[in-house]
Amino acid sequence: MKVIVDLCVVPMGVGVSVGKYVAECQKVLQEAGLEHQLHAYGTNIEGDWDQVFAAIKRCHERVHAIGAPRITTSIKVGSRTDREQTMQDKINSVVEKKL
Amino acid sequence: MKVIVDLCVVPMGVGVSVGKYVAECQKVLQEAGLEHQLHAYGTNIEGDWDQVFAAIKRCHERVHAIGAPRITTSIKVGSRTDREQTMQDKINSVVEKKL
Amino acid sequence: MKVIVDLCVVPMGVGVSVGKYVAECQKVLQEAGLEHQLHAYGTNIEGDWDQVFAAIKRCHERVHAIGAPRITTSIKVGSRTDREQTMQDKINSVVEKKL
Amino acid sequence: MKVIVDLCVVPMGVGVSVGKYVAECQKVLQEAGLEHQLHAYGTNIEGDWDQVFAAIKRCHERVHAIGAPRITTSIKVGSRTDREQTMQDKINSVVEKKL
Repeated sequence: MKVIVDLCVVPMGVGVSVGKYVAECQKVLQEAGLEHQLHAYGTNIEGDWDQVFAAIKRCHERVHAIGAPRITTSIKVGSRTDREQTMQDKINSVVEKKL
Repeated sequence: MKVIVDLCVVPMGVGVSVGKYVAECQKVLQEAGLEHQLHAYGTNIEGDWDQVFAAIKRCHERVHAIGAPRITTSIKVGSRTDREQTMQDKINSVVEKKL
Repeated sequence: MKVIVDLCVVPMGVGVSVGKYVAECQKVLQEAGLEHQLHAYGTNIEGDWDQVFAAIKRCHERVHAIGAPRITTSIKVGSRTDREQTMQDKINSVVEKKL
Repeated sequence: MKVIVDLCVVPMGVGVSVGKYVAECQKVLQEAGLEHQLHAYGTNIEGDWDQVFAAIKRCHERVHAIGAPRITTSIKVGSRTDREQTMQDKINSVVEKKL
């Protein structure tokens, strides 16, 4: 099952600056070979359900490993059976309607 | 890895009444033997990462199978390495502080 | 506009134990006279848009005031024009379909 | 209070194609003069709490007005008292750590 995901990992108990932990998750996504795009409040990811969620689990494991004792993560996951759609398709479908 | 999850499955393209689809997800969680608690805007789930996310994937599969062409799901997932915590512990820790 | 909301306030930079801050938000909701129900990963709230969001803003103000330098909050908000629905109605509509 | 927000408006009861409704929200944000950036699973917004949430309320009003009988919206809202931070700052703080 193909999915488009929005991921926002929040490490807790490590102070206010969490860029290091988010950067670690970017590395995990890159190593997984998953198409992804960072934005100001999370990261969009595109791929197969199992690969995407395996990578998200690795994000939790690695963020714990580099020092965060607690993590709260928000995930949005979209799947559809009516047609194929990429992250760029979703953006385009909005931009076209705005014209 | 033990997790506490909040799950909110939103089927799209099936009209405004979605109780049938949410009920289907409740059945999936029950079949999976996962402790879970329905609330007014989602369901809390407690369990091992792999079992919980396998069940969430089955929710998508079943909700598509019974008629929803598109699904957008919100998930919160919390994990911690500092100590064990159940769903009831989380509620208690707030209720105690309110007194 | 009547809304049903799910609120999850996460204070950052205050360590791993955040029950005190969540309890403060419960007080804000109570003082606002808003119907609300705590669960293991947030709080359901029911009320008029303006009153609910004024209370959520007060939560941020109070959580900052009692010591959190950073907050990341997740909100779900549902509104409908087709019919009235309470938090309990939403739960009932799922429970009935499960039978 | 300055906030950075992530907004994802999901109209229900209007079929699977919702680009028209999301585009309407983009117009609302533009009319409000709020800095915002569309991504594949939502829109980042930056501004004063009251202005941002007034715009989000108008999104619900307009999406109902153009035909959606039900809406479920996800919002993330971040505020901090330790320092000023823009949407671009948040992205930069992650990108720098990845190098």
